[in-house]
Amino acid sequence: MRDATGTTERRRAILEGAARVIARRGVRGLRVADLAAEAGVSTALIYYHFKDRPGVLRHALAFIGDRADRYTATGDEAAAPPADPRELLERTLLLEFQDLPEVRENSTAWGELRAHTVFDPELRAELAAAGAAWAAEVADLLGAACPGAPAPAVTGAAERLTALLEGLSVRWLSGLLPLWHARDLMLAGVRAEIAQLGSGHSAEFD
Amino acid sequence: MRDATGTTERRRAILEGAARVIARRGVRGLRVADLAAEAGVSTALIYYHFKDRPGVLRHALAFIGDRADRYTATGDEAAAPPADPRELLERTLLLEFQDLPEVRENSTAWGELRAHTVFDPELRAELAAAGAAWAAEVADLLGAACPGAPAPAVTGAAERLTALLEGLSVRWLSGLLPLWHARDLMLAGVRAEIAQLGSGHSAEFD
Repeated sequence: MRDATGTTERRRAILEGAARVIARRGVRGLRVADLAAEAGVSTALIYYHFKDRPGVLRHALAFIGDRADRYTATGDEAAAPPADPRELLERTLLLEFQDLPEVRENSTAWGELRAHTVFDPELRAELAAAGAAWAAEVADLLGAACPGAPAPAVTGAAERLTALLEGLSVRWLSGLLPLWHARDLMLAGVRAEIAQLGSGHSAEFD
Repeated sequence: MRDATGTTERRRAILEGAARVIARRGVRGLRVADLAAEAGVSTALIYYHFKDRPGVLRHALAFIGDRADRYTATGDEAAAPPADPRELLERTLLLEFQDLPEVRENSTAWGELRAHTVFDPELRAELAAAGAAWAAEVADLLGAACPGAPAPAVTGAAERLTALLEGLSVRWLSGLLPLWHARDLMLAGVRAEIAQLGSGHSAEFD
């Protein structure tokens, strides 16, 4: 605990280790002792930063969510011309399907946290919050792409697109769906939802 | 092994027990000794019928798939008037969202088999076959509902609807999505896909 930077780095090393372990062995395979070895720190330091194992899991979930935000950020500041909202939405969702170790690991860990919550509600509140924040981001992009669409229809379409993305992601990660095909199915799903929102015939039931 | 009926019943009892154990403790929680206790048979009988633990898992997956076919069968023989294909499709998919112990248990076990396959490919071939058969059934119903739609577009829409159903199902089963809302989202998803297929503007990329 010599300085703030060292502390931040050690917290980060622990959370990176936790994401790695969850992606490799599942939530049930995460033991604090193994995580300490994985992250190259003492168990005492893990307890100091995160209190207990549930504390590690909660922070790992937030860390995994933030990391997905980072690699799906389409970076609109500099070089790239401002994309239209529909293109931005498509690019953002497709960035979840990349054959990169970080994306695979992150999606695997996220899917595992979801699957684990069917059996054990310990992370339900955090998962609900993270899922709602993600659906809200997608709804913002969808709403910008379909400015005339009623808000409940946009919200419903965003919930479906995130659920579809997760359903496709699990198939991709388990080798049941080639990456290109997962991407094509995702893109076509976005287009079907946008067509429906743009048609003025809401598919929602209010 | 006194008679064929007794044999069928004991095999069935073992597979019902396996589905229950997978839904309660996950694939990794399935031990042959515990399953024997659960099903009220000897471990020897389990090995006799299914050879080994992977054999149990493979047959349990098929059993779970068949059981879902049974409770989603909309029974068109007798009383009910022949539904139109679109209604039949909607009813079939919504039958996966019912607050009944058998449906919950079956969907939980299916989702767990999916999630497990991300970590361990032992059931990949069986899951691929079961998933393809399911998507083909949905494609048949969709094709009947949208007779003019090109086959690749119908196939893609069916793959999306099954992935969406699984994504919504995991959220429902973990208490993150109320049942009525999962059903509404599913129905609206079907309608968006049908509208797209009926519009003549395929969302697919061939």
